[in-house]
Amino acid sequence: MIKKKNRFLIVCSKGTLDMAIPPLIMATTAASMGMEAHLYFTFWGMDIITKKKSSKLKMASVGNPALPMPNILGVLPGMTAMITKMMKSKIKKNKMPTIQEFIKMAKDGGVIFHACTPTMKLMDVAEDDLIPEVDDLIGAATFIDLAKDASVTLFV
Amino acid sequence: MIKKKNRFLIVCSKGTLDMAIPPLIMATTAASMGMEAHLYFTFWGMDIITKKKSSKLKMASVGNPALPMPNILGVLPGMTAMITKMMKSKIKKNKMPTIQEFIKMAKDGGVIFHACTPTMKLMDVAEDDLIPEVDDLIGAATFIDLAKDASVTLFV
Amino acid sequence: MIKKKNRFLIVCSKGTLDMAIPPLIMATTAASMGMEAHLYFTFWGMDIITKKKSSKLKMASVGNPALPMPNILGVLPGMTAMITKMMKSKIKKNKMPTIQEFIKMAKDGGVIFHACTPTMKLMDVAEDDLIPEVDDLIGAATFIDLAKDASVTLFV
Repeated sequence: MIKKKNRFLIVCSKGTLDMAIPPLIMATTAASMGMEAHLYFTFWGMDIITKKKSSKLKMASVGNPALPMPNILGVLPGMTAMITKMMKSKIKKNKMPTIQEFIKMAKDGGVIFHACTPTMKLMDVAEDDLIPEVDDLIGAATFIDLAKDASVTLFV
Repeated sequence: MIKKKNRFLIVCSKGTLDMAIPPLIMATTAASMGMEAHLYFTFWGMDIITKKKSSKLKMASVGNPALPMPNILGVLPGMTAMITKMMKSKIKKNKMPTIQEFIKMAKDGGVIFHACTPTMKLMDVAEDDLIPEVDDLIGAATFIDLAKDASVTLFV
Repeated sequence: MIKKKNRFLIVCSKGTLDMAIPPLIMATTAASMGMEAHLYFTFWGMDIITKKKSSKLKMASVGNPALPMPNILGVLPGMTAMITKMMKSKIKKNKMPTIQEFIKMAKDGGVIFHACTPTMKLMDVAEDDLIPEVDDLIGAATFIDLAKDASVTLFV
């Protein structure tokens, strides 16, 4: 029998804006609730933590691209107090936080960022190309080890 | 160590027809097998439970859009007896159930529907805009609580 | 309380090349680490195990389609020794393995392949249309049984 730890792990495999935000929000919330929270960036998700691409993520044209995201303040009531506090400190007059701000909030909350080494080799991404918030570079085996006794593992 | 309950939880983040159906089928099946089954509608998935959009979901052009879905009766052999019975009562002469019928089957089977409050604020969706099958409105923290000791949590 | 087994289960619901590879790599890695690894092919994912389509999967235009995948040898350092050995035996001079080779590696490593019977009925796919690597045909209820006490279940 596998004993599950208080760990929340998310595989971030997409590089579009709409699929970059949910993992960041979920992991930050989990961390704020005392869970050990991890994000594992792989495939297109590598764009989120790559210096040149992180600020240029685009909304996907899949689904309903009409989703308006003008007022991040509106998000606040659903969040926990701690995240609310973190977010408020970042937000100025109804402006949507950037991915960089979402990343900073996650890091400030204790979320651990893992870059997928196989993807880096595949995409020819060097360690210097990654944003400094990345904690370490791990492979598939280390990911499986993390997932095996995580309480929750999601593939986004 | 986290003790896992007999709970099946699915995050519904997509609003296309092909990604709306799998969570509904999985949750209905899990409920019919005695599990506590939950659907958490967020991001584009909010369209599935929004009155004006629920009946107008479209198939995604991603993947292989040639998938024919003419004969829902063909689905039956793979289902459990209880779902088969529920489905048969809804189906007339090979016609594909609508999303509304899939939703009703899920509800009849005991699946719990949660709307994501942060998404509602973000998309300016009011409680009155949601279909009556929605059980409650919850935020990210409540979702994490549900996921933490769920036996299975999937992100669709 | 649900007792979790040393099982890694992935739902493969996408038929694009970029979303076909991650489940195959994750399952093969999990199997090489002693886990019971399962792939459940459903919806568009059925294409991966359908004879006529398996060799013709295309990269999705979603995300960043500029991802280059020229040098599969680059993937190796992140893999475990066993997979590396399996991969090396398949790779000749920097050529990317085909999906068929990825599938063979997974099977050689002990990954179990399940075809989703409801999807087969829906898409009018016969058992003879499937590649011989498929172990069995199962429905939603059997899938839920597998997921219920799996250590990890992902929806890709």
